Amino acid sequence: MSGTLYGLGVGPGDPDLITLKALRILQSAPVLAYPAPEVGDSLARKIVSPHLPGTQTEIAIRMPLSAPKFPDDEVYGVAAVSLKEHLAEGRDIAVLCEGDPFFYGSFMYLFSRMAEEHNVEVVPGVSSPMACAAVLGAPLAAQNDVLTILPGPLDTDTLRARLEITDAAAIIKLGRHFPRIRALLEDMDLISQSRYVERATMDAERIVPLDEVDPTSSPYFSMILVHRRGQAWLR
Amino acid sequence: MSGTLYGLGVGPGDPDLITLKALRILQSAPVLAYPAPEVGDSLARKIVSPHLPGTQTEIAIRMPLSAPKFPDDEVYGVAAVSLKEHLAEGRDIAVLCEGDPFFYGSFMYLFSRMAEEHNVEVVPGVSSPMACAAVLGAPLAAQNDVLTILPGPLDTDTLRARLEITDAAAIIKLGRHFPRIRALLEDMDLISQSRYVERATMDAERIVPLDEVDPTSSPYFSMILVHRRGQAWLR
Repeated sequence: MSGTLYGLGVGPGDPDLITLKALRILQSAPVLAYPAPEVGDSLARKIVSPHLPGTQTEIAIRMPLSAPKFPDDEVYGVAAVSLKEHLAEGRDIAVLCEGDPFFYGSFMYLFSRMAEEHNVEVVPGVSSPMACAAVLGAPLAAQNDVLTILPGPLDTDTLRARLEITDAAAIIKLGRHFPRIRALLEDMDLISQSRYVERATMDAERIVPLDEVDPTSSPYFSMILVHRRGQAWLR
Repeated sequence: MSGTLYGLGVGPGDPDLITLKALRILQSAPVLAYPAPEVGDSLARKIVSPHLPGTQTEIAIRMPLSAPKFPDDEVYGVAAVSLKEHLAEGRDIAVLCEGDPFFYGSFMYLFSRMAEEHNVEVVPGVSSPMACAAVLGAPLAAQNDVLTILPGPLDTDTLRARLEITDAAAIIKLGRHFPRIRALLEDMDLISQSRYVERATMDAERIVPLDEVDPTSSPYFSMILVHRRGQAWLR
């Protein structure tokens, strides 16, 4: 009887924002796997660390900084071989995923390599736009709003064209793109309808007015929520 | 010491997809409130019913079918008065919200009436697009994809224009709009890149090929996920 590979959404950062279902699998799977940088700790593992019994086999899937493209075929290929051995011997594996596994998550690269031949189950998690909206006190979208998720690395013309026609947007993965995107929002006169947060629900969470953010310091886990109607639509 | 009003995301349907944080507040708040139809049971309450101790004061916020507009000022005004009395007497209130409170949720109408003068905290929840992606085995978006959330009641021209320029879409609130939207996806040659699910993670969950759905039976809690690149982008 072969094991099951679980893609486990562990939520946006607060360890208490994991679901009951994910917690049960997290604590009962004999093997854990998680993405990690080439050197250092895995954020997904850090999120769940208060819940770990400390007795599980752990596999860090480390992404080399020098990878010529993403997803890195070699890293995922090597990881898949190791995971398949555990599954073949009947051991379930919980792959830890920040937020939700299928919302811009790297789990899908394991999924695409393994779902055809193995039991794979995805456990959805609380995603970063919802976490950001909660801590900002800013509803994402209502009624028949169009809500657009925009990755910050997109070119400025694309971002502008999408912002022009959406009611609401979550601009994700800001990082080094922050200065360019703030300039765009200024140019579109959207600053007053935009809100910024870093690392929502994590210990290091920071909410800063958009025009006071140090443009060189914005991390990857930061987000801008825009609602073109401001908050007047709430009533 | 006045109480806190919690907007509690209870997740998409499976009672085990509630977070640890929401569960703790759900079970400790002396007062629960939830949206409900004019007659009958509240879906949000049904989702959490296995977790309820059965000792809490409950307030059903019932939406009359005849309401001329949404949000119904009278319903929310009356509800706010009742909730404020409990808060003034120091009792915390957990308002149950299907999915996430700020993702097309009705909680925001209470939030807009109460956040300025009361302690209000939003606990984010697992949202329906993530739940649908998980049960369909279909990643929502990756890398620099633009992901657009499209309410089904939007007019066909708007839906078409947004679908033409997005990488991925979640079309929500299908209900009686299903036949029109399926025809649009056929016309745009997107059927093979579209997947349909009803009531994801609930007991009554149904996954049906898009061209086999009875066009008269699609419920409000159904969704179509579209990825214009199909699933080829996974590798």
